[in-house]
Parts: sequence; C-alpha cells; structure tokens
Amino acid sequence: MKTITSRDNAQYKELKHLAGSSQARRKAGRTLLDGVHLCQTYLQLRGMPVQCIVSESALHNPEVADIVGQLEAQHAHVTGLPDALYNAVSQVEHGVGVMFLIDTPERVVTAPLSVSAVLLDNVQDPGNVGSILRSAAAAGIQQVYCSGGTAFCWSPKVLRAAMGAHFVLDIYENVDLAPLVSGSTIATLATSGYATQRLYDVDLRQPVAWLFGHEGQGVADDLLSLASHQVVIPHLGQVESLNVAACAAVCFFEQVRQNQA
Amino acid sequence: MKTITSRDNAQYKELKHLAGSSQARRKAGRTLLDGVHLCQTYLQLRGMPVQCIVSESALHNPEVADIVGQLEAQHAHVTGLPDALYNAVSQVEHGVGVMFLIDTPERVVTAPLSVSAVLLDNVQDPGNVGSILRSAAAAGIQQVYCSGGTAFCWSPKVLRAAMGAHFVLDIYENVDLAPLVSGSTIATLATSGYATQRLYDVDLRQPVAWLFGHEGQGVADDLLSLASHQVVIPHLGQVESLNVAACAAVCFFEQVRQNQA
Repeated sequence: MKTITSRDNAQYKELKHLAGSSQARRKAGRTLLDGVHLCQTYLQLRGMPVQCIVSESALHNPEVADIVGQLEAQHAHVTGLPDALYNAVSQVEHGVGVMFLIDTPERVVTAPLSVSAVLLDNVQDPGNVGSILRSAAAAGIQQVYCSGGTAFCWSPKVLRAAMGAHFVLDIYENVDLAPLVSGSTIATLATSGYATQRLYDVDLRQPVAWLFGHEGQGVADDLLSLASHQVVIPHLGQVESLNVAACAAVCFFEQVRQNQA
Repeated sequence: MKTITSRDNAQYKELKHLAGSSQARRKAGRTLLDGVHLCQTYLQLRGMPVQCIVSESALHNPEVADIVGQLEAQHAHVTGLPDALYNAVSQVEHGVGVMFLIDTPERVVTAPLSVSAVLLDNVQDPGNVGSILRSAAAAGIQQVYCSGGTAFCWSPKVLRAAMGAHFVLDIYENVDLAPLVSGSTIATLATSGYATQRLYDVDLRQPVAWLFGHEGQGVADDLLSLASHQVVIPHLGQVESLNVAACAAVCFFEQVRQNQA
C-alpha cells in the first residue's frame, strides 16, 4: 500500500478534482464508489478497481481490512490517506473511509430491443434514477437506456441510491430513445395518467421495454406516441400521480408477479 | 394585502426563524408549504391557511394571482414581501414565490386499527417518507402512523416529496407502534427479506395495515414478531433488496390490483 501524506501530491490533487466535479468524472470516464457496501459489491460482481483509496482509521475496520487484503493479494493499487485528506475527498459524511476509483463503462447501442429493458426519458432526480436502477435489478431486468437529459447514472448520488445495482445492469447513456422505441422487436410500454388500458390488463409474460419520463411532464409526447402500449396504474385517491420511481417499481413487480403466476 | 419591507419586522423575523429551524416548527405546531402546487392543493382540500406569503414578482404569475384572489375574497391574511426578503425565507431554489403558513394537525391515537393503514417504524429519509405518503394516498389508504424515529412528516422535504398527499391523509406521529400492532383488529403485514410467504399469495381484499421499517435494518425484530403476516416481494436479481418507498408502492398497488380483480 502506497501512502500519500501531502495535499500537494499530484495524484491526490487529481483525485480531489475528480471527486468534486461531475464534468471531470465524465471527461475522465471514471467515477468513485464511496463506502463499504458499494466497494464490496463491485469487487464481487465486477472485480478489481483502478485504485482503492482508504483512510488511515478505516484500516482498523474488519470489512475494510478484508477488502484491502483481497486487493493486495491481486496486486491492485491501494492508496492510504490520513483521515483529514480522505475526508476532503469523500462525499459521504460519517462514512467508513474506503472508496474505489473505477472506469465507467460506456456502451453504444448496436441492436434493437429484444429483452426486458428500462428506458428513461429525461428523469431528473438522481435519487429517482438510482431507485429505478435498484428496482430493475431486483426484478431481473438487465438493460437500461437513458436519454441525454436523464441524470448521469455514474454520479455519486445515483450510485448511492442504487446500492450496487449498476454492477448487474448494462447501462446505456445519452441514447436517442425515439429510434430505439420505434425499432423495438418487443412491446414498449409507457405509463400515462391519460391511458385507458390498466397495467394489470396487459400480458407481461414476455420481454417488454418500460418507458418512464420526466418527474413533472412525464414521457415526452413524441416518444409516447411511438410506444406500442400506453398503460395506467389505477389510482384510488385524490392525489394526481405516483412518484416515477414508485411507478416503476409497481410496473416491474407486476411483471414479476405475472411471470411467477 | 399587507406588505413587509424591513428585515427587522417582528413578523418577518418569526417567519424566517420558522423556515430555518425544524425545532421551531415543531414547537410552534406550524409549518410552511412552499410553491404553487402545495398551496393550491391545500386550498382545495383543507381550505384557508393561517397566512399566505407571496413575493413581489410572483404576483405577476397567474396561478399565484388566482391563489391570492381566493384568499382575499375570504379575508385571509396575505403578506407581500420584496423578492430579496422572500428568497431569504424560501427553501425552494428558483421556485415561484408563494407559500402558506399552516397549523400542523396533531392527532392522538384513540382507537385500534380497523381500516387500511401504513405504519412507519424508524424510516429515516424524508424523500422516502414523502414518497410513501404519496403512494398511500394514490392507493386510497387514509391512515398513516409514524414511530418517534421516523422523519417528521411536516418537514419541507417530506411535504415536497409527498406532493399534497398530506392533505388527504390522517397522519399520526410519535406513535408507539407495538401496542397498535398487537391490538389491531385487522391483518398487519410486514415485509421482510427472510419471509417465506410471497406478497402475491396473501388475500388483500380486506383492510390491512402495512408495516415498513428503517432503510438499512428493516422493521425492528420486536415489532416484526407482532405482525400477523411477514411477506416477501420475490426478487429475481442479485441485488439484495428494494428501496423502502419502492417496496411500499409494490405492496399498496398489489392491494389495489386484488381489490379491482
């Protein structure tokens, strides 16, 4: 394990820049996974990070010591930081001091939709995007396609909300959703408060692509008109709609229910 | 409409104190609804606020003008503030400058559970609590009982996430959930990753009380053991669990589906 003790160290300065700027993370094609749970899950599902950064005091934590031990056995890069330097980089308050620097996978769409997938059109809130990724992974959906206006999936907030779902999903970003929907070989379902067909009346025992939209405006009209189905989740109350992440969970698990029936 | 122009005005100072301190809001038994949507919904469902506060520039917004017009027709208190003073009070960035000061209802549990309800045990995140309230209202559930450790329902973050659901719900806070569960006259269902009965295999065509717990630890063991049913939402992926708000949405709308079948 290499130890950095100076704030002026070039590698430390680069790390701090990456931690503080989403633009820097996008440009570098790298992001930081902060905390034991995300690091453990990455290690288990994706393998070695580019680098592991650990705070001095976290080395006494048995889970962190285990992670570091696994990495050093594989000759991976581990960098130790005094707590003050570590805390200036970490976005997590009162967290356990371990993070992974990883490459963010960049995927290019090359084939039409043919297995169950989630399409996010301009979903703004990182917490919502993270929750949708987590629910999709729990429902056994593997593909996620995001429009340019959707929150960046590899941002720290989305990563935290998704609790490791990223590492079992194939995530495509900056996707032009219209040709994907119109060229789909499977049913494309958009939820809409104006639809007349109930979610529960659609046969979901086959792959489907779920299309969700902006928190306020929903799925854009041009995309909505391309979807093969518009469905509504029946509401009983006087409240106008569900949160988009709640809506997605209801849809995904209605598909699970039908497939298990 | 009364106009305040000085930061030293006693009423303005009180308002600013209330906006900045959750302790002050609890002590006063009052909260602030920030933004057009919450104010409109309150007006429609609950009636007149204690006071309406509006920024100078927002008076040109037709929706705000309509709200102010309705209030003045009923001789309700409307206070105008210069934008700089308004923005120092508002928690919403780039919002439309209107807020209501309202009394927060305080309810005391006097009867056993007999209609469908939601019980929140130590749910920490205001966004999760708000999303659960919104989903419950959309599913036609009216009663919500929160343990002392659950996020305060009338905080600005919970209010924003619930999008007006508060005004169709009966919310009980600081509730000792154990006697409520053990004395329930209806089924009490807790979700647990360790349960063996699937959610889909429980007959939900009758009132049930849903019990959800802490984001990390779930429902506390002593409460879990009091619930009449422990149910699991079947997971297909390698991801360990759903977000608690996603989990609640799946449960509520499975009940809606069964009731409509």
